[in-house]
Amino acid sequence: MTTVGILGGGQLARMLALSGAPLGLRFLVLDSAQDACAGQFAPMVVGDYTDQAALDQFASNIDVATFDFENVPAESAHWLAERRPVFPSPRALAVAQDRLAEKTLFLDLGIPVPDFAAIGTRESLDAALIKIGTPCILKTRRLGYDGKGQFRIKTPADADAAWTALGPQADKVGLILEGFVAFERELSVVAVRGRDGEFRAWPITENWHVDGVLSASLAPARVDDTLSATAIGYASKLAEALDYVGVFALELFCRDGVLLANELAPRVHNSGHWTIEGSETSQFQNHLRAVLGLPLGDTRVLGHACMLNWIGAMPDANAVLSEAGGHWHDYGKQPREGRKVGHATLRADSTRELADALQRVGDSLDRREQVAPVIARLG
Amino acid sequence: MTTVGILGGGQLARMLALSGAPLGLRFLVLDSAQDACAGQFAPMVVGDYTDQAALDQFASNIDVATFDFENVPAESAHWLAERRPVFPSPRALAVAQDRLAEKTLFLDLGIPVPDFAAIGTRESLDAALIKIGTPCILKTRRLGYDGKGQFRIKTPADADAAWTALGPQADKVGLILEGFVAFERELSVVAVRGRDGEFRAWPITENWHVDGVLSASLAPARVDDTLSATAIGYASKLAEALDYVGVFALELFCRDGVLLANELAPRVHNSGHWTIEGSETSQFQNHLRAVLGLPLGDTRVLGHACMLNWIGAMPDANAVLSEAGGHWHDYGKQPREGRKVGHATLRADSTRELADALQRVGDSLDRREQVAPVIARLG
Repeated sequence: MTTVGILGGGQLARMLALSGAPLGLRFLVLDSAQDACAGQFAPMVVGDYTDQAALDQFASNIDVATFDFENVPAESAHWLAERRPVFPSPRALAVAQDRLAEKTLFLDLGIPVPDFAAIGTRESLDAALIKIGTPCILKTRRLGYDGKGQFRIKTPADADAAWTALGPQADKVGLILEGFVAFERELSVVAVRGRDGEFRAWPITENWHVDGVLSASLAPARVDDTLSATAIGYASKLAEALDYVGVFALELFCRDGVLLANELAPRVHNSGHWTIEGSETSQFQNHLRAVLGLPLGDTRVLGHACMLNWIGAMPDANAVLSEAGGHWHDYGKQPREGRKVGHATLRADSTRELADALQRVGDSLDRREQVAPVIARLG
Repeated sequence: MTTVGILGGGQLARMLALSGAPLGLRFLVLDSAQDACAGQFAPMVVGDYTDQAALDQFASNIDVATFDFENVPAESAHWLAERRPVFPSPRALAVAQDRLAEKTLFLDLGIPVPDFAAIGTRESLDAALIKIGTPCILKTRRLGYDGKGQFRIKTPADADAAWTALGPQADKVGLILEGFVAFERELSVVAVRGRDGEFRAWPITENWHVDGVLSASLAPARVDDTLSATAIGYASKLAEALDYVGVFALELFCRDGVLLANELAPRVHNSGHWTIEGSETSQFQNHLRAVLGLPLGDTRVLGHACMLNWIGAMPDANAVLSEAGGHWHDYGKQPREGRKVGHATLRADSTRELADALQRVGDSLDRREQVAPVIARLG
């Protein structure tokens, strides 16, 4: 009997547990929130990620550890790694936690990135603004996700406001200025690398964000084979360089047919949720297979899939459940503004059927704006 | 938040919970065994099905109840049904619990059955043996499953031994003598009926048993449309007559192209496990959708699937996990002779690929006998 420890007890941990149960695994989740939604289907240790007693109890009851979010404190990850196998490794986690280290690694590997500069002082911000130009985005190097810890600078006149907002964090977590990419598409590669170095990627996913939060994903993305091979090549290089074990997502911008790497998410990823029904093997099961050193599962798609995120509160389930390829995922969370509370996946054998299903769901739930860009892409 | 209560905490309850989690459901399992495998992923009340305190605690913490096995004591089912909605209904359960009531209903509905006779005394056994002839099978009317509570009578000379074995149960649970059917195939219809009467069936499954226990299932079965329509028609009639709500399986014998109904299993069924990966909607999720009055999911197959049961102990997982369409289901049980501890499902886009995968898995696990009849059927 193998027990997998998961640091973080949100929906990713919940879906990992549900997907890993058929492998005969048990789970133990560490989260500071008593009501973390993974706790509905897995035993929990309630405590902070830096709470030594909680970490002790967690470590002594698991065989291997993984994460459901990337902002695990480095010391906790290292402490754990001295006691139990931890995948992905604290080193991979450290790189992904730091936008500057991450972008530097991308560059080193020949993976194109938007212009960027490390910002330590107001003076360095001004200098970088001249070099990179506007529009651009000032971001914390660490601890940001879903658009948090970011300030968009539209003109040089916004520099004061940006510094007021994020300057105080320059010493603590560091800042980075990134050139704004007027991209046509946001793509992601969700991929998995095994303990033995085997690498597999799901077909490229196209993503649409609203207010910095993922709104919809389409897979396979409507991209040509060359672009697809390039994107997957980047992901493979990155995984190799980090000796990465498990599932990760590489987020990319596509502008004028050129790919620019945006960020690495060292975990199962929202843009891979469609794999639960849309692929032979889900990202969740493949993550666990990788972490445990089991053979990786096939990443082929079953038709075409679109994932719709539910933010804040769950809509009525019936519109989705009435669709032949409609699948519902309620994370069992309390509603809260801006919170990811669930998603739906629509699967179909053809793009036409998928577009029709999206139209019906969008109409029925009065969410035409959410489905419109996906329908437009499906042509 | 809806909590579904499940009487019985075996692998069926476990798979119900795993499959229902994405619907935002919570579960509560009642089982007399502290280590019932569903308890690894759902909270439990430990107690006997007739234990009033346990039933009380169970009933007061659930919104709706269902079963993971058919031999729930009738009084407990009725007691529950007075307090909470119970699906399938105690009446449907009662019919399915009694081989005589079940076969009588089949006959009433024009569903052909093997010859049978109620047996109350040694004299009635002798009389029935003359009428039905040998070979035949003496069975308890109630509480038998997977070949338990059965005695095969090959010649009239076996009557003494049969009566010695099962006669003592004639008063308590009743006996039935059934003509032995020299069938060419065993088929099952796994189907679901909603609270609103909507009926859907998965494609027919062919099953192979060893020592009375399911060994392998193939779906869709290689049968012609007429046979398939007849079988599904029987299932539909039956569901209608019982005002059945939820998933059930109708087991059928096929002899000389004619179908004979063997038995009704009023629950998700081992011969429907392939639906987890082999169909758009699994039997587990559709059972819950039915029980909750949600729209039923699509029952179409995704290619071809074969389920292999693991009895006694789990084999090595790698052979199955190395197959592109290989899916593993370890129920998290302790090994024990004759116990269903897990299953695997192989899925493929063509019968050729499925046969090849079965061959490789059979060779690798040294289980050629288990896969051979399925490969032969796939031609």
